[in-house]
Amino acid sequence: MDDILAGLIDIERGAASNETLTRQLYDQLRAAVLSGALPPGQRLPSSRECARQLGIARNTVSVVVDQLAMEGYLTVARGRRPIVAAAGDKPLQTGRKIARTKPKPVAVSHWAERVRKSAWPFIHNGPPRPLATVLADSRLFPHDIWARCLRRAARRAPTGDPAINRASLRAALLRHLTEHRGVRAEARQIILMPSAQAALELIARVLLDAGDLAWVESPGYGGARAALDAAGATVRGISLDRNGLAFRGRKDRPRLIFVTPSHQHPTGRLMPVSRRQQLLGFANEVGAAIIEDDYDSEFHYDGRPVAALQGLDDSGRVFYVGTFSKSMFSEVRSGYAIVPPDLANLFEKAQRHGSHIVPAPVQDALAEFIDDGHFAAHIRKMTRVYRSRRDHLLQALGAAAGEHLTIEPPAGGMQLLAHLAPHWDDGDVVAYLAQEGVTGRALSQHFTGPVTGKGLFLGFAAWNETEIDNAAAVIGDVLRRMSVSRRPRASVNRRPPQSLSHPKA
Amino acid sequence: MDDILAGLIDIERGAASNETLTRQLYDQLRAAVLSGALPPGQRLPSSRECARQLGIARNTVSVVVDQLAMEGYLTVARGRRPIVAAAGDKPLQTGRKIARTKPKPVAVSHWAERVRKSAWPFIHNGPPRPLATVLADSRLFPHDIWARCLRRAARRAPTGDPAINRASLRAALLRHLTEHRGVRAEARQIILMPSAQAALELIARVLLDAGDLAWVESPGYGGARAALDAAGATVRGISLDRNGLAFRGRKDRPRLIFVTPSHQHPTGRLMPVSRRQQLLGFANEVGAAIIEDDYDSEFHYDGRPVAALQGLDDSGRVFYVGTFSKSMFSEVRSGYAIVPPDLANLFEKAQRHGSHIVPAPVQDALAEFIDDGHFAAHIRKMTRVYRSRRDHLLQALGAAAGEHLTIEPPAGGMQLLAHLAPHWDDGDVVAYLAQEGVTGRALSQHFTGPVTGKGLFLGFAAWNETEIDNAAAVIGDVLRRMSVSRRPRASVNRRPPQSLSHPKA
Repeated sequence: MDDILAGLIDIERGAASNETLTRQLYDQLRAAVLSGALPPGQRLPSSRECARQLGIARNTVSVVVDQLAMEGYLTVARGRRPIVAAAGDKPLQTGRKIARTKPKPVAVSHWAERVRKSAWPFIHNGPPRPLATVLADSRLFPHDIWARCLRRAARRAPTGDPAINRASLRAALLRHLTEHRGVRAEARQIILMPSAQAALELIARVLLDAGDLAWVESPGYGGARAALDAAGATVRGISLDRNGLAFRGRKDRPRLIFVTPSHQHPTGRLMPVSRRQQLLGFANEVGAAIIEDDYDSEFHYDGRPVAALQGLDDSGRVFYVGTFSKSMFSEVRSGYAIVPPDLANLFEKAQRHGSHIVPAPVQDALAEFIDDGHFAAHIRKMTRVYRSRRDHLLQALGAAAGEHLTIEPPAGGMQLLAHLAPHWDDGDVVAYLAQEGVTGRALSQHFTGPVTGKGLFLGFAAWNETEIDNAAAVIGDVLRRMSVSRRPRASVNRRPPQSLSHPKA
Repeated sequence: MDDILAGLIDIERGAASNETLTRQLYDQLRAAVLSGALPPGQRLPSSRECARQLGIARNTVSVVVDQLAMEGYLTVARGRRPIVAAAGDKPLQTGRKIARTKPKPVAVSHWAERVRKSAWPFIHNGPPRPLATVLADSRLFPHDIWARCLRRAARRAPTGDPAINRASLRAALLRHLTEHRGVRAEARQIILMPSAQAALELIARVLLDAGDLAWVESPGYGGARAALDAAGATVRGISLDRNGLAFRGRKDRPRLIFVTPSHQHPTGRLMPVSRRQQLLGFANEVGAAIIEDDYDSEFHYDGRPVAALQGLDDSGRVFYVGTFSKSMFSEVRSGYAIVPPDLANLFEKAQRHGSHIVPAPVQDALAEFIDDGHFAAHIRKMTRVYRSRRDHLLQALGAAAGEHLTIEPPAGGMQLLAHLAPHWDDGDVVAYLAQEGVTGRALSQHFTGPVTGKGLFLGFAAWNETEIDNAAAVIGDVLRRMSVSRRPRASVNRRPPQSLSHPKA
C-alpha cells in the first residue's frame, strides 16, 4: 500500500508554478480512478505520506484530495485516509466499463432529417465565380464608411436597452421602405433578422404545421422551397403565365403562398397590379398568408421600381421579406420581415425564442448608414453599375451565343434568365460551365413539379465587364461544342467531352 | 372627359424637383385607380392634354403613364389615349371592393401557439434591478478593450470566407474550454450561436419530435423547459436528491435529458462524478441525449471548477452549451454548443437553415479578446469580485432575515437559493419585493410537477455591496411584515398589505 502511487503518478519536476503541480496531481489521480487503476474501495496513503512519496507540498495534496472528494472521486473522513469512491453500494463505473456496453445511438427528429436531405443551403467552397447569381458586388461597397459606422457603434457602451429590434434601425428602415418600396407599416411590425432566409424560416414555422399546403412559384426560388419543406409543409409548385402565378380555377386551398412579385425569381417578370389584386382577393377568400420576397427590388432599371404588394394589403396577410445582403454586401448578414400588425408581438416573441437577433452594434451601424444617406447613395450608384452590366451581359451573350439563347431582358434585379431550346440538358451545360470556371444555375432545377423550360440563370451584378465578357465567351464555346458533339446526354457523370475539359490540350 | 382629372389630381406647385412632380402624379393617379375614382375602362386625356391641364411637362406624364401601364394600372396602345385597366374580362378589383368582403384571418401553427402561451422569454421593462439573477456585472466589463477588438474586426474587409463558424474563434474557445472546463472535442464540433437559448432551441429541434419525452431537473431552469415545450416535447420534471437528478428506478425512457451538473440551477448543487457516470450509463442504455448547460461554471469559488460532464462522454451523446453573456456581458449576444462529432455537419447545416449565426466581426473580436488573454483575465477578476459578493450577500441575508431563510452557500455561479419554510407563498414574497424595487425569483416557479420547496432565488454577481445591503434590508423588512401580518395569502391579486406598499405613508 505504501507505494500504490508508484507508476501511477508521475509529477514533472521541471514545472515551476504550484498551480501546475496541483493540476498534474489532480489530472493523474482522476485518470487513475476513472481507468480503474485505482479501484473503488482502494485506500490511498495519507496526505503527508503521499506528499513525501511524490516530493511535493502536503498542502498541494490536500487541495487535490478535497477537490476530488467534492467531485465524488474520493471519499474522505476527518483523520482517515482517502478511499476511492463507490457510488451508493455499487462501485464507481469506470470509463472502460462504459465503453464495453454497446451504447444506443442518439436519434434525430423528422425536422433534422428533412434538413439533412435538403439541397439547401448551397455551400460554396472558395470565393464565388462569375456569373454567380443573387450576389452584390462587394468590391464596390464603401467598406471604409461601413467600418466607421460599425466602429462608432462599437465605441458606445451597452445601453441596457432590452429591445431586440432597435427603434433607430426600425425607423430608418421604415422611412426607406415607405419611400422607395411603397410599404405601409408601423415600425413595430419590422422584425430584424440575421438574414432573409431566417425570416422565411421563422414565418414558415409561425404559420405552418406539418402537412399544411404551401404554394410556391414554379419555376421559383429554392431557398423558399427549402424553408417550407423544412417546416414540414406540403409544397406545391404553381406554374406561371406572363403575369406571374397562374392560380385561376385551382381548387386546392393553400395556407401560405410564396411570391416574388417585383422581379420573379428566376424569370425576372413583374406581376402587374391586376394579378396582385386577384392574388390578394383569393388569399382573403381562402384565409391564406402571402410571403412577398422583395429580395432585390432596390435595383430597377426601366421605369420606376414597382411598389410592393405589401402596400396593397388591407387585411394583414402579407409578410414582406427583404435583405441588406443584396443592397449592401452578403457578409453584413442582416435581413428583415414586415409582419401584419396583429402578429407583431407574437413574431417578436418567436424571434426571441430562437434568438434570431441582429447584434446591437450592427443594428446601430445600419441605422447610421441609412440615416446619413450612404445606403440610398450606394443603391443609386449600384443601380447605374448594375444596369450597365445587365446591358453588357445581354449584348455579350447575344454576340457569343445568340443562336442558342433567348433572353427576356429583366427590368431590374441582379440576374437574367437565358432560355435554351427544350432538347438541351441545362444541368449538363451548368456542369460543363463549372469545369470552365463559370457558375450558372440550370432553369430546370428551379421547378417544383413538371419541368417546362430549359435555360441558364446568370448573375450580372457582382461581375465587371471583363468577367462578363470572359464568361459569355465560355458559355458560347460550351454551347457550340455541346451542340456540335450532338448533345452527349448519355454522360451520366457529367464529364464534359474531352475537348471541353482540356480545351487547350 | 376633358376635366376628368380635376379634383382627382392636385400637384403641389411648391415642389422644386422633377422627381417630386413625377412622384406626386404617380401616387395620385394610382390612388385614383385603386379607389375606383377612375373606374376600369375609363379613358384618360392624352399626355399632351393631361400635361396642359396639370401645368407640368408632357414627358413627366409619359413616364408616369408608362410606369402605371407596366404595373398594370393602365393599358396603353400607340396613338391611343390610356385606359384604366381591366384584368382579363373582369374589371380591376378596387381597394374598396376588397375591403367589402370579410377576409378570412391568417391562422398560426401549433408551434406558434406554444410560443404564444410560453412564459419565456421574460421581457423586462427598463434596466434590471437588484437582485436579478443570471446576470453579469456589465459595469465592471472592460468595454474599452472590447470596443477596440470590435473596431479592429470592423476595419478588416470581408474575406469572402463562407464559414459561419470562424476557425479563429473555434480554436480560441476550444483552448479555453479544454483547459478550464475539461471539454474534449475537435474545433469542428463547436457551433457558434447568438445565445445559449438559441443553442438549446436548435438542439431540441434537431433531436425531438412532437410528443417525445424529455427530462428536466425539478426545480430547474425555465429557459430549457421553454425550449423543450416549444419543440413540442412532453417535458417531465425529475426531482433532485443531494447529488442531482434522482432517476434511479424510473421506468420511463426519455429521448433527451437536460442537466446543469456543475451548479444546478437553481439549487447551486454539484453533481458528483458517480452520479454523472450513472447518468451517462443510463443514457447509453436507453439511447438518450444529454444537454449539459454549463451556463456559469467559469465562476467557481471553493476548490477548483469541476470538469464538464461532456469530458466523460465516450459515446457522443452529450451536447455542451455555454455562453459569453455570463462571462462577459449580456449584450454581447453570443453563445455556443459543442455537439457530438457524428452530428457536427448536420448541426452546421441546421444552423445555416435558420441563420443562427454570430456576425463575422463579432466572432473575430471574440477570438482576439480570448487570444490576447483579456477573457481569462476578466474571468479571474470577476471570480474574486463575485466570490466576495456571494459572501457579502450570505452575511447580509443572515443579518437581515436569518430567522426566515436557510441558505445553501453555492460553491460558484452568480446566484444563491435562500429557502423559506413551506408555509410561505414565495410568489407573494417576490411580488411584494418587486414593489419595493427588489427582483427575486420564487423557487416554487422553478418546478415542473409537484412543488416541494419554497424560497428566493437571488443574484449577487451583478450587484455591488451597497445594492446588496439595501436589497437584503428590503427582504428582511418584507419577510418580517408578512410574517407579522399572518401570511395574507388570500390576496389573489398580490397587492401587498397597506403597510408594505406605502411604508412611508
